[in-house]
Amino acid sequence: MFISFEGTEGVGKTTLIQKLHQHFQQKGIDVVLTREPGGTPLAEQIRSLLLSVNHDEKMANDTELLLMYAARAQHLENVIIPALNAGKVVLCDRFSDSSFAYQCAGRGLSPEKLQLLNQNFVSKMPDITFWLDAPIELGMTRARERGALDRFEQEKVSFFEKVRSGFEHIQQNEPQRMKRLDATQLPEKVFTDALSHLQSLD
Amino acid sequence: MFISFEGTEGVGKTTLIQKLHQHFQQKGIDVVLTREPGGTPLAEQIRSLLLSVNHDEKMANDTELLLMYAARAQHLENVIIPALNAGKVVLCDRFSDSSFAYQCAGRGLSPEKLQLLNQNFVSKMPDITFWLDAPIELGMTRARERGALDRFEQEKVSFFEKVRSGFEHIQQNEPQRMKRLDATQLPEKVFTDALSHLQSLD
Repeated sequence: MFISFEGTEGVGKTTLIQKLHQHFQQKGIDVVLTREPGGTPLAEQIRSLLLSVNHDEKMANDTELLLMYAARAQHLENVIIPALNAGKVVLCDRFSDSSFAYQCAGRGLSPEKLQLLNQNFVSKMPDITFWLDAPIELGMTRARERGALDRFEQEKVSFFEKVRSGFEHIQQNEPQRMKRLDATQLPEKVFTDALSHLQSLD
Repeated sequence: MFISFEGTEGVGKTTLIQKLHQHFQQKGIDVVLTREPGGTPLAEQIRSLLLSVNHDEKMANDTELLLMYAARAQHLENVIIPALNAGKVVLCDRFSDSSFAYQCAGRGLSPEKLQLLNQNFVSKMPDITFWLDAPIELGMTRARERGALDRFEQEKVSFFEKVRSGFEHIQQNEPQRMKRLDATQLPEKVFTDALSHLQSLD
């Protein structure tokens, strides 16, 4: 099973992933914990190009999108597909829904470009996706508390409002795959909500 | 005018570009000399990911292709388009024909994938492209003499034969844009052949 986790900054994805990781381990199930952009040594190098705020130049929107999909292609071929083929559960912090939310809804790139990349370069979509939803200001405060902000985290609230509406758009179009979790709740409640969605899959 | 230079390793692209650069400068024409993958600080960082032989992992073919187009998008937006808009001549060592020759003809990626990327992420194609053609062994010997080989240069002769046939395929399909130059000739003769093609454009 391939499970992805989406949401704006600071909504508690990491905490939920850790709780689910523990849950699967306790049930004796092999779990691969990974993230995007990244997840392989080369994809992590692409990640640092994407997140770095030290570029001497503005990154073109197309460049950002293509770097995301370059990292994703590497991650799929070298980590996700082999793990799924071996019968493992893959827990992935962000996947292609983030590309829609950040690059299309956020930056204004055409959804058609993204769809072409998904159709041609993404051989496997998540079986279920948890969208952790919370008011932008709440998440931004948490993200700021974590320390220095990366190139994405430095964006304005208005950008993240658009990103959030991007996730909402996906959830409305694919309610079967994408489940909204109320991320203003206590972490334990978010976890049990996620579990109930997983159990209804069995 | 946007002029690109293509060919397998060691066919003399750099020498021809330098001669043309001098030629345009002597005529008082502003020239931008650039290369792919690369041409901007960020695109050069992507170039080093692409050429490095030190990866702990095999680079997926899709990743290679998408990194090429990420670098190209950055190069187009920050260097090529602004230079052309300012009325300059752009001399570019490799462009998207290399993606067809290396990633499709060489590695076997589908030409449809490449076409989609060209249509959606390449807003400007070269006005004229010089394909420097020479027997593979001749170029390989020259490339080896230059020193340590990069990830592409380390490929086998059979790979470069496929790459060469990729360039030949483009030349046959787009004879108006792509001009074949016999690169076994002396550099001065290759240069005058190139010039005669440029003069017929005036």
